[in-house]
Amino acid sequence: MSNQNPVFIPGPTNIPDRLLRAMQVQTIDHRAPDFVQAFAPVLEGLKQVFRSTTGQIVTFPSSGTGGWEAAISNTLSPGDKVLVARHGVFSHRWIDLCQRHGLDVQVIDCPWGSGAPAERFQSILADDRNHDIRAVLVTHNETATGVRSDILSVRSAMDASAHPALLMVDCVSSLASMPFEFDGWGVDIAVSGSQKGFMLAAGMAILCLSPKALAAMDGARLPRTYFDFRDMLDANASGGFPYTPPLQLICGLQESLSILFDEGLDNVYARHFRLAEGVRRAVGAWGLSLVAQSPDLYSDTVSAVYVPDGFDSNVLTNHAYDTYGVSFGIGLGQLNGKAFRIGHLGSLTDVMVLSGLATIEMAMADLNYPIQLGSGVAAAQEYFRANGTNRSRAAA
Amino acid sequence: MSNQNPVFIPGPTNIPDRLLRAMQVQTIDHRAPDFVQAFAPVLEGLKQVFRSTTGQIVTFPSSGTGGWEAAISNTLSPGDKVLVARHGVFSHRWIDLCQRHGLDVQVIDCPWGSGAPAERFQSILADDRNHDIRAVLVTHNETATGVRSDILSVRSAMDASAHPALLMVDCVSSLASMPFEFDGWGVDIAVSGSQKGFMLAAGMAILCLSPKALAAMDGARLPRTYFDFRDMLDANASGGFPYTPPLQLICGLQESLSILFDEGLDNVYARHFRLAEGVRRAVGAWGLSLVAQSPDLYSDTVSAVYVPDGFDSNVLTNHAYDTYGVSFGIGLGQLNGKAFRIGHLGSLTDVMVLSGLATIEMAMADLNYPIQLGSGVAAAQEYFRANGTNRSRAAA
Amino acid sequence: MSNQNPVFIPGPTNIPDRLLRAMQVQTIDHRAPDFVQAFAPVLEGLKQVFRSTTGQIVTFPSSGTGGWEAAISNTLSPGDKVLVARHGVFSHRWIDLCQRHGLDVQVIDCPWGSGAPAERFQSILADDRNHDIRAVLVTHNETATGVRSDILSVRSAMDASAHPALLMVDCVSSLASMPFEFDGWGVDIAVSGSQKGFMLAAGMAILCLSPKALAAMDGARLPRTYFDFRDMLDANASGGFPYTPPLQLICGLQESLSILFDEGLDNVYARHFRLAEGVRRAVGAWGLSLVAQSPDLYSDTVSAVYVPDGFDSNVLTNHAYDTYGVSFGIGLGQLNGKAFRIGHLGSLTDVMVLSGLATIEMAMADLNYPIQLGSGVAAAQEYFRANGTNRSRAAA
Amino acid sequence: MSNQNPVFIPGPTNIPDRLLRAMQVQTIDHRAPDFVQAFAPVLEGLKQVFRSTTGQIVTFPSSGTGGWEAAISNTLSPGDKVLVARHGVFSHRWIDLCQRHGLDVQVIDCPWGSGAPAERFQSILADDRNHDIRAVLVTHNETATGVRSDILSVRSAMDASAHPALLMVDCVSSLASMPFEFDGWGVDIAVSGSQKGFMLAAGMAILCLSPKALAAMDGARLPRTYFDFRDMLDANASGGFPYTPPLQLICGLQESLSILFDEGLDNVYARHFRLAEGVRRAVGAWGLSLVAQSPDLYSDTVSAVYVPDGFDSNVLTNHAYDTYGVSFGIGLGQLNGKAFRIGHLGSLTDVMVLSGLATIEMAMADLNYPIQLGSGVAAAQEYFRANGTNRSRAAA
Repeated sequence: MSNQNPVFIPGPTNIPDRLLRAMQVQTIDHRAPDFVQAFAPVLEGLKQVFRSTTGQIVTFPSSGTGGWEAAISNTLSPGDKVLVARHGVFSHRWIDLCQRHGLDVQVIDCPWGSGAPAERFQSILADDRNHDIRAVLVTHNETATGVRSDILSVRSAMDASAHPALLMVDCVSSLASMPFEFDGWGVDIAVSGSQKGFMLAAGMAILCLSPKALAAMDGARLPRTYFDFRDMLDANASGGFPYTPPLQLICGLQESLSILFDEGLDNVYARHFRLAEGVRRAVGAWGLSLVAQSPDLYSDTVSAVYVPDGFDSNVLTNHAYDTYGVSFGIGLGQLNGKAFRIGHLGSLTDVMVLSGLATIEMAMADLNYPIQLGSGVAAAQEYFRANGTNRSRAAA
Repeated sequence: MSNQNPVFIPGPTNIPDRLLRAMQVQTIDHRAPDFVQAFAPVLEGLKQVFRSTTGQIVTFPSSGTGGWEAAISNTLSPGDKVLVARHGVFSHRWIDLCQRHGLDVQVIDCPWGSGAPAERFQSILADDRNHDIRAVLVTHNETATGVRSDILSVRSAMDASAHPALLMVDCVSSLASMPFEFDGWGVDIAVSGSQKGFMLAAGMAILCLSPKALAAMDGARLPRTYFDFRDMLDANASGGFPYTPPLQLICGLQESLSILFDEGLDNVYARHFRLAEGVRRAVGAWGLSLVAQSPDLYSDTVSAVYVPDGFDSNVLTNHAYDTYGVSFGIGLGQLNGKAFRIGHLGSLTDVMVLSGLATIEMAMADLNYPIQLGSGVAAAQEYFRANGTNRSRAAA
Repeated sequence: MSNQNPVFIPGPTNIPDRLLRAMQVQTIDHRAPDFVQAFAPVLEGLKQVFRSTTGQIVTFPSSGTGGWEAAISNTLSPGDKVLVARHGVFSHRWIDLCQRHGLDVQVIDCPWGSGAPAERFQSILADDRNHDIRAVLVTHNETATGVRSDILSVRSAMDASAHPALLMVDCVSSLASMPFEFDGWGVDIAVSGSQKGFMLAAGMAILCLSPKALAAMDGARLPRTYFDFRDMLDANASGGFPYTPPLQLICGLQESLSILFDEGLDNVYARHFRLAEGVRRAVGAWGLSLVAQSPDLYSDTVSAVYVPDGFDSNVLTNHAYDTYGVSFGIGLGQLNGKAFRIGHLGSLTDVMVLSGLATIEMAMADLNYPIQLGSGVAAAQEYFRANGTNRSRAAA
Repeated sequence: MSNQNPVFIPGPTNIPDRLLRAMQVQTIDHRAPDFVQAFAPVLEGLKQVFRSTTGQIVTFPSSGTGGWEAAISNTLSPGDKVLVARHGVFSHRWIDLCQRHGLDVQVIDCPWGSGAPAERFQSILADDRNHDIRAVLVTHNETATGVRSDILSVRSAMDASAHPALLMVDCVSSLASMPFEFDGWGVDIAVSGSQKGFMLAAGMAILCLSPKALAAMDGARLPRTYFDFRDMLDANASGGFPYTPPLQLICGLQESLSILFDEGLDNVYARHFRLAEGVRRAVGAWGLSLVAQSPDLYSDTVSAVYVPDGFDSNVLTNHAYDTYGVSFGIGLGQLNGKAFRIGHLGSLTDVMVLSGLATIEMAMADLNYPIQLGSGVAAAQEYFRANGTNRSRAAA
């Protein structure tokens, strides 16, 4: 246990001591065999996390945003048309990135709190007889709203009209925390990062590419060098890196994969569901509402919670930070001031979640929210007691 | 925040990350000037923590038990008489140590839950006209019972009959957490350690010696070498150590002192009181009783709590550990099975305390204790809200 | 001292323990005030390292290659003409990057081992009456050849014809090791990284931008989002980051700046010169030649050394690694097999350099190079003895 | 490689990064099952390092000096006679400790540089018809003189007269670096510590006890509590510790054992011999002499080297430290000013040793020693080249 309270932002997550130590690595020569030995099994392990056998992993020293840029600049050309729904800040940002790279972005604006609109996608794709749409972009987990979209339904929508567009999925805040099936869902490019389900420092974008995505590289005319898949794949193939690799994160990732596989991915998912459900019980006990519109959309990594009318969520999160030293996620975009977010992903335990609930409860009480002190904690305790396992402890 | 839940044992405490890093020290030559530069200010800082200007600090690479042995073997001779009360496991162990070193130990057995019996001390000392009693031994904070004794009242008892015995105080689990006044209370030898209020790893006994204690060294005939004050003082005087010093703990102690002085000792004490009081409110809300017999005896570093009749406290602490991954202190000695202990010392926050209370609450509910889920948490929340400060965060 | 031998690659460098610890940082909320407090002084300190008062710092989570891409994509448009000399692998790579981004690159091929051709630049710029050339790109320190170019002479060449092109300088392997004068040399964009003179892990590109470079952003039509200066500058201005920041590197950089300023930049430069000169004396004693053509071009961070005819430098570096566990730089590009490189930058001491020289000497002797065992070491020892200071120790 | 030059003191040794990380451990409850799981295999592994199947391990949080005190106070009574040779500072200190504990110490003064006088022991023991001598104390490796004694010859001397005295051996600076055979040599108590061959921080005494030593506890009347074998053995038997254990060192020891067993003890010994022999070749090339009188006495962990007449070894070691930042061992006791010591034990490589030799060579040349710069390095290089293996690298 550290000197700090846990953070309850939806990533970067609380970093387990074991990973802090694993990232504390002295320089080795990245052109020497030691580096290859460290890196190759990481690429293999990552494929398992994506649940892919046919996919190809590429990583870049960058944030997840760099991963988005890599996805489009390696497969598309200026003026190419892409289809994407906007229902939160992160889907918005991906749209903005596409526009700034000169793509023709067909945006479907949806209510924040809703998921990816598979039916509308299906209708638009069916109408796209010329297959002008080159890619469909979906945010698996909208970190701003706490909404998880159904990727399989989007794939089905595409298959319904046998549309050849690439399916690109942002799984930055879902991978290694909620079920993700790269092969099973027919994803072409999945974009994630080191600082969420992998519980590491930020600094590495992690992508999985289908054979179809790889084939798209040849015709793609958007300029890229730093994020060029080919340079990375060529270098990786011989155990190298096209430029200086982020050795510390690679070593951390190796240990992170050990932690995940030791717990078992299905257990990791189950633990995230249990923790998230505890949070949702607390929210219910407080009489508050989630931004996510329906249970099938509830995210297991982050819950966005509306504050009652007349309250400002920024005042709440600032108060929690200033008075109790605990960080919660603020409301982003149109939710700013209207909702706060509780991140519940990564190396987290029942016990840690309860401390977050107790804290935000105190903060709400301090600000005269109409809530009963202890009620949310008790609701979560009740749920955890009934659904606990001896896996309640996070990674050692 | 680390991968672990906090521990709620009464020491070793949760180690702040800043101290984990400070102890991560590569070997330097302990005979070189660098060592002197690291060590000298530590000795000076420790004096301030003991609140002493005339005292002399000595440290040994050992646990606190080694500090006890050092205290008696450097100042007493075989057959010397010492006066001591037994009211918990730690006072008992010191008695046992004295007996094994051939001292004539006058034991006053007191109920566990009571403090040092100043009045009985006074009467015995008054009767000791020949001044056969060479030392009075007091446990400032009985870690087994959560009882803090009033050292000043013992000093007054000694002064009442102008008794020349040495006043030796075990402050292992109180120093740097609760007020301690070496000079003000007329203490002759105070014994502490690195792993409680200093928030470090175990491995260093820390003592403060009055001029009278130093003078007693000359006549003391108990054998000692490893724990010999003279060797240590001679070596320290020239910046050295009589054998290999525990460099990592010395560097850690330097940083620990920075943390303590940055917060301010009075603020450290106030924080411990507030956290302890929150715990006591929770205990009250559960309808349980403390082992400590009265509020003036309540320890601010550990609370020993009786379980209701018919329950076994060992089952409770095992269950909390096995199911929720949280360590609480077990009942020791005659309290085994009858009480559990909540440690609340060191680098701890309101938020961390609430997580401990929420956990033991769940564990009690699981075992059908007659308690209301959430009640203890709510009572502590209420107290913390009303008495919080913007110093709620522990050391960064 | 760690378990490893030092590396003698020209970056990433040996990371001081103090920086390994400084980078071992638990997650904090990057939207909270703590982050601002950590980040703002880093930006200020970096300006001092670039020796700039008017420049603006931007950083990206990426390698130095990302910094190059940021430099051109934020200031240039497709088809823009740039002037650049190719005299090593790193200047070549920057050229390649420009070409892949659709720039019109006028390449001056120079012998490897030579520096930036200021005279030829001057003549070409004088002829460019229409000012079609938008930027002159120079590699301050060619890591592949161990050549340091004279940036001021390039600036003078530009000034001679009052040419308005931007002066972009790659100082990845020179900044914080050899004198660099952003303002004094009239640089418009300087590109560096965390893993060389700053002695940190790889993962952060560090740029300094002149007002003229900032002004060029408006007209620049190369697409960029991840590396967009405007997003970064806007976010930084309010203490934020446009995406998840590399917290660990930022904290490391804060400590790195402390180390550099404690030693004093001029002392840092002097130490690098002394260490480099010791290496050069050893090379001379072995009877071998540097790739750098003349003393005014000698780099103080890396020496590229020709192996004698008939020897393969890859066999040598592999042998040193396999037999003695020490990494040296291989010959890159047209120097592959013909030269090896000794990196001598970052947190390095005389003593560490001597261990590298002793090692490569053994390796050369093992492979029957015509060298005298101990001769290079002795030559370096002689130089260090005569030019040593009590600053011979690297950062504690 | 860290920021520091290696130390060449004969312990504490350079700590491998892997062990620095392994010791960086957050508090766990030492009364919980996790502790038992960490501790039990350590005890088992230590037996293997002592090469014992019948021995019993005990450890104490203390320096090696505490181990000496434990050895005598648990097996002897006031006035008991012990036989011991004095031929260096460490044998002297053990004698002093015995005397201060009231033992009757029969001291054989031998020239410093000689080993344990087995023949004189044999004669004295043969004369001790009443078996008044209760223990023979031998320093396996005299760290002050660089002399390794032949323990088997002492055992043979004892066996020659079938003398029942206990054989106690100080192997603090030899265990896990040079061959040691607890069972094979008939040792009764071997005393070592964490900070030499185990490459850890100081702070743990490590002992191995024969059944005969255990039997001697019953009659032993020297007082002891902190160092009482019985308390420790009783507590260890149930997975506990009689007081707060040094968790960080226990975890470090677990990793240290992994490092040692991965390399293989025989390889560890061979590496120490090779490194020591390289140092000895350098000493020979300088024309200097070892304190150790003959090759059979040469220690593989430390070499004590006489400086030429007219030179002061303290000036030399101070100069090496002040000018080059490297710590060598000073001459101790009667060797002060006359000899310096080169420690060459623990996690050390050829390359590191060469850096130490190059440094002391520079220092000697600076002070006008009649030595040839580079000569010692070249002699060691020649030896390492001819006797190197691909195990030249220390633990990763």
